[in-house]
Amino acid sequence: MSLLISLPESMGPRALCSALLDLEPEMKIVTGHENVQNPDEVEFAVVWNHPEGLLLNYPNLKAISSYGHGADGLLADSKLPEGIPLVRLTNETMAEWMSEYLLAVVLLQRRQLLQHAENPNFIEWGIAARHPGNQLSILGLGYLGKAAAKVFLKNGFEVAGWSRTPKQVEGVSSFSGNDGLTEMLKSTDYLVNLLPLTTETTDLLNTETLSKLKRGAYLINVGRGQTLVEEDLIPLLDDGQLSGACLDVFRTEPLAEEHPFRKHKKILITPHNSSSTPADSVAPQILENYKRAVSGRQLLNQVDLTHGY
Amino acid sequence: MSLLISLPESMGPRALCSALLDLEPEMKIVTGHENVQNPDEVEFAVVWNHPEGLLLNYPNLKAISSYGHGADGLLADSKLPEGIPLVRLTNETMAEWMSEYLLAVVLLQRRQLLQHAENPNFIEWGIAARHPGNQLSILGLGYLGKAAAKVFLKNGFEVAGWSRTPKQVEGVSSFSGNDGLTEMLKSTDYLVNLLPLTTETTDLLNTETLSKLKRGAYLINVGRGQTLVEEDLIPLLDDGQLSGACLDVFRTEPLAEEHPFRKHKKILITPHNSSSTPADSVAPQILENYKRAVSGRQLLNQVDLTHGY
Repeated sequence: MSLLISLPESMGPRALCSALLDLEPEMKIVTGHENVQNPDEVEFAVVWNHPEGLLLNYPNLKAISSYGHGADGLLADSKLPEGIPLVRLTNETMAEWMSEYLLAVVLLQRRQLLQHAENPNFIEWGIAARHPGNQLSILGLGYLGKAAAKVFLKNGFEVAGWSRTPKQVEGVSSFSGNDGLTEMLKSTDYLVNLLPLTTETTDLLNTETLSKLKRGAYLINVGRGQTLVEEDLIPLLDDGQLSGACLDVFRTEPLAEEHPFRKHKKILITPHNSSSTPADSVAPQILENYKRAVSGRQLLNQVDLTHGY
Repeated sequence: MSLLISLPESMGPRALCSALLDLEPEMKIVTGHENVQNPDEVEFAVVWNHPEGLLLNYPNLKAISSYGHGADGLLADSKLPEGIPLVRLTNETMAEWMSEYLLAVVLLQRRQLLQHAENPNFIEWGIAARHPGNQLSILGLGYLGKAAAKVFLKNGFEVAGWSRTPKQVEGVSSFSGNDGLTEMLKSTDYLVNLLPLTTETTDLLNTETLSKLKRGAYLINVGRGQTLVEEDLIPLLDDGQLSGACLDVFRTEPLAEEHPFRKHKKILITPHNSSSTPADSVAPQILENYKRAVSGRQLLNQVDLTHGY
């Protein structure tokens, strides 16, 4: 019986294999689906951007794990084997990296350091360039959203959060529903999208919703590209409704070289690296789910197929 | 009897005047030394970059306040009236702004956001660009240094500090003396200069000392430009001993347009605005020192002329 690792090279499939073997030296692991010799042996698969239909090849599969926080990539496969549970990763290091990225971007914008880098003369010598706005609002109060909220709270920000169902998070003004979204947006200086991609969140950020933000707010998308209607963004930036945007995710990745976002002065682009999946750090959780799957126990972080995350 | 405000326009002399009048509406204030009609009346002066010898004009001066954290600008005047006490400002808002700037710069460097801004393709899609180095070392553990240490500690950094005399700061590995400096530098990932400018700190950061840093360390100078030997910096950057530098202060300010720092890819320049003096926030401290000065009481934050700060 074996565990299959099917990840793009950039995600370090061999690093995960070696981290798992450090924990369980006797474990049978196949790295790369092209190296599977006996499909009957595969009981557990760790995947990211796998080929559609791949997972139908393994008749004894007990569970499938996304190699990231999101399950949307897995669910995008219309040929998933029926009835096989899906899990995703939650991990403290991933949350720390994400929160750190968000804090870096927000402080960068508050202190206008990109403008300084481009032209230190953009402001008179000795004059502080500091946006006073202090409300950071987080769309999505899951594992990553709550971790980010804590970091911003301890750095003196007012933090609000919006989620599908009402949630109580200490120190965070929490909102839900359409009215809640409108209410939150109007006092938002920095809007962070950390929502999972579902039918409900697709296209949620568009001209109508973003126009409800406090004028001059700053948008950070680290959730999924499909949540933002891309063609709506540039007019909002050019008009000044948004002071800028930092985008780590896009509807099509990698972002095309000729995409207009690449040329826009007010858009900071990062190549989907706000966080990362650190092999050593997630290996114990993957191993635990593997053991649970083969022994038929309840899995950790199982994806709720009704809600899509 | 009156208080004289002699500040450059960029520091907002009228904002200070109005903040003082809000607290003490009957107070007599002259804004701008050119507007002094009766020099005998001036008992207290708040200055920044004042003309040399100016303060000799006021025979009844009881104290002089720098309009900033540093006293070096005041002490640079070789024609100060003898025996008149000098004070400087310490202020929570100034410390918060400074700490925020430092955190912004360090996170910016850790997550390579300037490199992303310039070319999002500098790293492969999906690969996290994150410097793992975690030790931030602060030169100068005064009011601003201690405040910065607290902010970095709560954001998960290892913090070290170096000061003229040994100091105990909770959570901070403290060093002093030449050997202490060498010891601290060798494990430093981010070096922050917050030292006051004195004969001892002038030229302290040079090829010899900066070569003792961990290879690839990042330098941030927010203290005084004279602490850094400017011509030593670029070779250290080009050689890779330093991975970059963020400079907010310079030997001559504003920094000359043709200065080589302006063209160097690894140098981020800000126009001496890492912090600022917020009039409303410092007015109570200035008023208190004014009252103490005219009634002959002990002043707050008096400059120690032996040590020069």
